[in-house]
Amino acid sequence: MVEIAILGFGTVGSGVAELIDKNQDKIRRAVPEGVHVKYILDIREFPGSPYADRVVHDLDQIVSDPQIQVICETMGGKEPAYSFSKKALEHGISVCTSNKELVEAYGSDLMETARANGAGYLFEASVGGGIPILRPLRTSLAQEEITEVLGILNGTTNYILTRMERNGEAFDAVLADAQANGYAERNPAADIEGHDCARKIAILASLITGKKADYDRIPCEGITGITAADFAAASALGYAIKLLGAAKKEESGSWSVRTAPFLVPEGHPLYPVSDVFNGIWLHGNMVDDLMFYGRGAGKDATASAVVADVIELAQGGGKAPAWTEEKLPLSDGASQKSRFLMRLSRAEEEAARLSFENSAGEDTLTAVPDPDGILAAANETALLTGIISEREFEDRTAGLQLHGRIRVL
Amino acid sequence: MVEIAILGFGTVGSGVAELIDKNQDKIRRAVPEGVHVKYILDIREFPGSPYADRVVHDLDQIVSDPQIQVICETMGGKEPAYSFSKKALEHGISVCTSNKELVEAYGSDLMETARANGAGYLFEASVGGGIPILRPLRTSLAQEEITEVLGILNGTTNYILTRMERNGEAFDAVLADAQANGYAERNPAADIEGHDCARKIAILASLITGKKADYDRIPCEGITGITAADFAAASALGYAIKLLGAAKKEESGSWSVRTAPFLVPEGHPLYPVSDVFNGIWLHGNMVDDLMFYGRGAGKDATASAVVADVIELAQGGGKAPAWTEEKLPLSDGASQKSRFLMRLSRAEEEAARLSFENSAGEDTLTAVPDPDGILAAANETALLTGIISEREFEDRTAGLQLHGRIRVL
Repeated sequence: MVEIAILGFGTVGSGVAELIDKNQDKIRRAVPEGVHVKYILDIREFPGSPYADRVVHDLDQIVSDPQIQVICETMGGKEPAYSFSKKALEHGISVCTSNKELVEAYGSDLMETARANGAGYLFEASVGGGIPILRPLRTSLAQEEITEVLGILNGTTNYILTRMERNGEAFDAVLADAQANGYAERNPAADIEGHDCARKIAILASLITGKKADYDRIPCEGITGITAADFAAASALGYAIKLLGAAKKEESGSWSVRTAPFLVPEGHPLYPVSDVFNGIWLHGNMVDDLMFYGRGAGKDATASAVVADVIELAQGGGKAPAWTEEKLPLSDGASQKSRFLMRLSRAEEEAARLSFENSAGEDTLTAVPDPDGILAAANETALLTGIISEREFEDRTAGLQLHGRIRVL
Repeated sequence: MVEIAILGFGTVGSGVAELIDKNQDKIRRAVPEGVHVKYILDIREFPGSPYADRVVHDLDQIVSDPQIQVICETMGGKEPAYSFSKKALEHGISVCTSNKELVEAYGSDLMETARANGAGYLFEASVGGGIPILRPLRTSLAQEEITEVLGILNGTTNYILTRMERNGEAFDAVLADAQANGYAERNPAADIEGHDCARKIAILASLITGKKADYDRIPCEGITGITAADFAAASALGYAIKLLGAAKKEESGSWSVRTAPFLVPEGHPLYPVSDVFNGIWLHGNMVDDLMFYGRGAGKDATASAVVADVIELAQGGGKAPAWTEEKLPLSDGASQKSRFLMRLSRAEEEAARLSFENSAGEDTLTAVPDPDGILAAANETALLTGIISEREFEDRTAGLQLHGRIRVL
């Protein structure tokens, strides 16, 4: 029997324990001796829980038990998750985690610690919840030169955007309802400001390149500024609005990585990814386009990804560090080009058109139809630029008071 | 250096050789000593090819070379692919293949031969081309009880159906054009009659259950009977028509496996999968719904999947047989329930309505709108049943001359 311990008996941790019991027969096809949860570390007691007798409060009891082969860190946050993971690895115990904050900040440190101690460190559940994405990138796509990845990586914001799109609801109203229903956290900043998505695209970019993509240097915009008028304009143009983590290799070899809302055209594989679902699209130089879709969060789906890691670690895998401390060269993205949809006061439309004149004195903006009068009701107009660089867009709109602007994929 | 040989220097085989050269740096991140093609077995010579000096004509030269660690069988067909693969495995050389016909027919035999000789046998490229699906099922989803899988598994038929849907073209015309453009083979039967798709769903069902799903017992319908009238009816109802491989675990524990065209509702992850792309949707008891999307065929994408297997075999993996000779219990599917769309002569509509009366004497069929008059022009009507079993549908339509019938997903 492979004995394991779970650190943190919250939603994901309890899901891991339950999944291991429920699907033990299936797990034995991969790990014939079976997997058993010997300890659960938590500061709380869980009287009445079927796992009550396995709850301990001292990490040393776990790491000093030579039977323990794998530890699942499902505590979240940087501390004490980092110290606990580090200690386990230093004892030669393999660790897997659902903790994206920890992986983004200390992943290369922990992977190097694992390597030095003959242990493994895996974190499939940290990106895309239950969607198999990090392991396929490490294995099935090891031979591919991945040049671009786009991900709907946050279920909460995708749920909010989907409801705004379908029902014309306002952001604040949907957020409040999502909080009441448990789809959004009481402090929703990490989701709605894009930080969660930015951490996940940092992890994806690091895994793909083998070098650390600094989260602190990733431009990050959330969805708090998206309005019903944006959806009216997007819909009139045949686009959906999605919060994406986007990473692309530039010709220079640097990577442009950002998190922002994008207009996604109908026909793109990410266009229909709605509600709490996540989707990760990527392009490899030989395999061309791929897309992975599924539940990006939730107790059972996240636990499933954690247990997949337990199985690989129990089989002796997961020992090769996925990236090092070496920094991935990130471009400032200023030369990256796209169309932009901008929303501004009708009073400023003429100024915008003048500012976007080309060298021949011709206006290069396209007016966006407003069939339902939603823009007009807000006394706004929406204009679509041609394909221009980030820098040029900033220059040309410097004198305007934009109410919003969204890049077009 | 890991030395390998390629059997069959056709489209996929040459793609494998080229990919290994082109992406060698990337491959070395997974296999630090690198991978090198030492031999290419073919009955032909390839003067002028950069690989000309590696071409040999005798398998014994390859299997007797102790340097050879992995063989890629990209010949296709059952023989001599089977004999060659068997011989390599008996020499302890691991084998990977893109050959779905061989894997479906002799997979368990070859996997057992591999196991007995300490070698591995892998076949990612046999299903879904470049899409990572078999490895994620073996690894990322090893802990999941997969209860259903639905796949758009044949790019040729999906391309034909997409053109029929978008342009209202007739099946024969699109097929002829697809043949002229290389999207369909000169003898297209294996694709358009559904046999290729049936082999792939047999492989998926075998891998998921660990037991051999007999291809010979899988009901198989192709797309040759699909008409513009079917698309008119499907479109009026908000459906796409897709050729699916479908496998579902029934309450009895038996599996219902079939290949047939299905009406796929808008909103289903497979709905937007168009042109030559493939998509595989599946449901696990913990992870819920997942979907994998990408190129199901083509030189580079297929070669990419073969090289992923080379990497895993070079790392010493792929040794656990994915299924055995034990037969998967297959139901006859007669109790499986769905809606059916049926197309028949307008003269038979009244007879159909009478036949589908419920116990209270009420007609239970829904007439399908015909806004463009396409059904009327063919003197046909399209009717949608309620949710009934395959058996009941057969009984109730026994006296009718159906022009077509398609299950609704």
